[in-house]
This record gives sequence, structure tokens and C-alpha cells, in this order.
Amino acid sequence: MTHTAAMLEAAPSSPRYDLGVLSRCIESCLDCAQACTACADACLAEETVGELTRCISLNLMCADVCDATAFALSRQATSDDAAVRALVEACVQACAGCAAECEHHAEMHAHCRVCAEACRACEQACRELLPSD
Amino acid sequence: MTHTAAMLEAAPSSPRYDLGVLSRCIESCLDCAQACTACADACLAEETVGELTRCISLNLMCADVCDATAFALSRQATSDDAAVRALVEACVQACAGCAAECEHHAEMHAHCRVCAEACRACEQACRELLPSD
Amino acid sequence: MTHTAAMLEAAPSSPRYDLGVLSRCIESCLDCAQACTACADACLAEETVGELTRCISLNLMCADVCDATAFALSRQATSDDAAVRALVEACVQACAGCAAECEHHAEMHAHCRVCAEACRACEQACRELLPSD
Amino acid sequence: MTHTAAMLEAAPSSPRYDLGVLSRCIESCLDCAQACTACADACLAEETVGELTRCISLNLMCADVCDATAFALSRQATSDDAAVRALVEACVQACAGCAAECEHHAEMHAHCRVCAEACRACEQACRELLPSD
Repeated sequence: MTHTAAMLEAAPSSPRYDLGVLSRCIESCLDCAQACTACADACLAEETVGELTRCISLNLMCADVCDATAFALSRQATSDDAAVRALVEACVQACAGCAAECEHHAEMHAHCRVCAEACRACEQACRELLPSD
Repeated sequence: MTHTAAMLEAAPSSPRYDLGVLSRCIESCLDCAQACTACADACLAEETVGELTRCISLNLMCADVCDATAFALSRQATSDDAAVRALVEACVQACAGCAAECEHHAEMHAHCRVCAEACRACEQACRELLPSD
Repeated sequence: MTHTAAMLEAAPSSPRYDLGVLSRCIESCLDCAQACTACADACLAEETVGELTRCISLNLMCADVCDATAFALSRQATSDDAAVRALVEACVQACAGCAAECEHHAEMHAHCRVCAEACRACEQACRELLPSD
Repeated sequence: MTHTAAMLEAAPSSPRYDLGVLSRCIESCLDCAQACTACADACLAEETVGELTRCISLNLMCADVCDATAFALSRQATSDDAAVRALVEACVQACAGCAAECEHHAEMHAHCRVCAEACRACEQACRELLPSD
């Protein structure tokens, strides 16, 4: 049980996005940041780590961007729309790139399969946010 | 639906905490970081912001510590137990301090009431993790 | 004395940017993230905080984006160029927006004047990086 | 040239630490976070990455803790001293642990040697802050 939707509803500022779409996007970003961090860690513990270094790099990049995006989107009183939009676009790119790499290893490693799912869900949630900006 | 538990189960390294307790703690840290970020933002949008500056400061501190703790706990292959334990202890302190401040404003501001709940849940989840370390 | 340039030179991967330009950009991002965090904190301590809430919001956004950008640029083995470029573009936007707001308050508040300088330096350093991508 | 000291001096709140010591500590934390991020990335690009996985894990942990500590210390209007102290103690632990690991690889890898220096400098700067709290 998260408090994301309740926090967005409790804000005194008028909503700039559909609250359901925004809440899902923030939660997807946090979930993806966690999954990417855990996937990098799991890759490091694999005997075949030498084949997973690109996956680890993209995981770390994606985790940082998703984390920053989740917090930027949690600040609805802010009005620097250009910066927020550019950040969400960076998040779409990072998720798509990390998902594609994780999908290469999905049959071999369950953590890459689950992480790819989290990345695709976050990519989709960010894309849904962009047109309504 | 988050991927936290699935990611932890998919890791090749043997678990160092009960997976249910660990998964709940990571998710509580992310939820609390989001709530604190949103609460700071909502406080900034209140006409009485001058009475909420301490709340905003503690929100920002708590968000940073919870975020770092969530990611440290997501790396179960790491073995710097002393640093992780100190970080979880810092998280307990930050959550307790922020919750106490938010509780002062809970009757007046719904965002402070909801944020206090998220902080108390995170404080409790971190405390449950510490003895099993 | 920082270790940024020495770390970049010590990496086994071939450089993807001019190392001097890259090093300056990473350091400018970290410096700007610090300045924005401190400026938000200083604004909260001003009696006229009610007139500074937009400044605080943009400070917090800018700090998060600069921080994520500094770490993304520190990972030169990564090759998700599209995501890095989008993130640097978000950083340019966030710095420009925060600088413009801080400049409104520069005569009244030294912290806003200094923060605006840090934001403009970071905006410029990020712009220098983009064409060489 | 950073703006850290100028930002701290420009704050309206009275200083809670010696400003020179505080400024050096914040800058050391940011420098160490950068060095650890770059060291993890450089380790991933080494052919012998399989021997460096513990180093990478400790690098990532140390980067996260140093980053959170730098921002917590940049907020001098905040007064949750217990949480800040616990966080600085976590930072000392993380830096000491990462430095010790990097020192094992310092003869073989220049990035580990430089990163160990950054970690030891940050550990020392954090220790200097603690007694004056």
C-alpha cells in the first residue's frame, strides 16, 4: 500500500496531469529504479558477469534517471514544464534502452526478465504522461 | 504492482534478511521518499508556508535518506554491513523526526497527515530490519 | 582539489568527450546541485519565504537533475547516448529556469545571486558538451 | 571553482559548524560520490571485472551515501541533528569500507588508487565534522 495517490490528492495546487496517470507514472519510476538497482546487483553476483557489463551500466543509468523523474513529478507546485518534459523524455529513452538490453538476457537470468518488465512498464507510463503535458 | 519482491527472489546471492521484511522495507523507503517530496511541495503551496518551513526541511532530509536507504538495501550482493546498518539507523531517525513534525500539522493539512503515516510506516519497517541484521 | 579529471583519465574505456570539457561539466553539475540545495534551504530561512516558493521549487528540481546528470556523465563505459543527451538537455532547461528565477531575487538575497552564477555556469558547461556528443 | 563556501556564507541561518570544515566536508562528499561512480564504471570496463565485483558494489553504496550526506549537510536551516549525525556516521563507514577495498586493487588499477584517495579524504572530512556537532 503506497501513499502516492493520497499525497497528490492532498496537495493545495491544482493538478497539472490526470492524477491516476501521474500517480501510476511516479510509482512506475520508483519501481523501475529499484528493479534496475537490484538487477545491477544481481548481475554482479553472476559467474558470467563479464557478459553482463553493458546490462549493469544501463541499469545504473536507468535507476538514476527514473529516481530523478519520480521526484520531479512529485513536485506539482513547480512550473518548469520544459525541464520536466525533457526529464520524462530522458526517462523514456533510459527505460527503452535498459529494457532492450535486459530482454537479451531474459531467458538466462530471471532478474533481467523481471527488470525488463519494470522498464517497459515505466517507459509506457512516461509515454502516457507526455501527451497530456 | 511492484517488482521488488520478484527482483529480490531472482538474485543469485543468498538472502541476508527475510525477503518479506526486506521487500516491505525497501518499498516503505521509496513510498516515504515520495510522500516527503510531495509534502514539501504541498507545504510550499500553502498560504501559511511561513509556519511550515521546519516541516519542509525535515521532509527534504527524510526524502534523501529514505531514497539512499532503499537503494542500499536493494544491493544484497554488497557486504558492507556496518555502513548499511548505520544508514538504516539514520533512516529511522529521519523518519521519526519528520513524522513528529508532520503530526503537528496533521489536523490542518491532509498532506502532513498522510506523510506522517508514510514516515511512521517506514520507521517501523526499518526497525524490523535492524534486529535481523 | 577534486579527483574528477584523474578518475576520467584512469578509465580503461576510450573517451567519448573531450576530457577537460567533460570534467568541467561533471564538476559544474555537482556544484550547481549543491548551490541549489543550499539556496532552497536559505530561502526557507528568510522571513519573506512566501515570496520565494517558486525559487525553492525550481532549486529542488534543478538539484535533482544536476545530480543525476553528474552521475550519468561519470559513467563513460555506458553507451546509451540518446538517454544521456536527453538528460543533459533536461539539465540545460532546469539550470536556465532556476537561474532566471534566482536572478529576480539576486539584489535582495546573496544566496540567490551566488546560486544563479552556479546555474549559469552549469547551463553553459552542459551546452558545451552537447555539440561534441 | 565551486560556490559551496559562498553559499554557506550567504545563508541567513547562523552556522552550526565551522564553515571551512563544513564546506570541505560537503565538497569531499561530492568528490567521493563522483570518484566512486567513475570507479565502478571503470571496473566494469576492465577485462578482470570478475575480480572487481565487490569493489563495484562498495563503490555504488559509497556513492549513494556520500551524495545523500552532501545534500543533508547543505541544509543548515534543518535541525534534525540526530539524523544528520547518523548519516555522517554511515558515510564514514561507507568511505572506510570502499577505501579498504579499492586499496587492494590500487597497484593494478589507477582508478582504484585515485578512488581510494577520494574515499580516505571524505572519511577524514566527515570525522572532522562529527566532534564539532
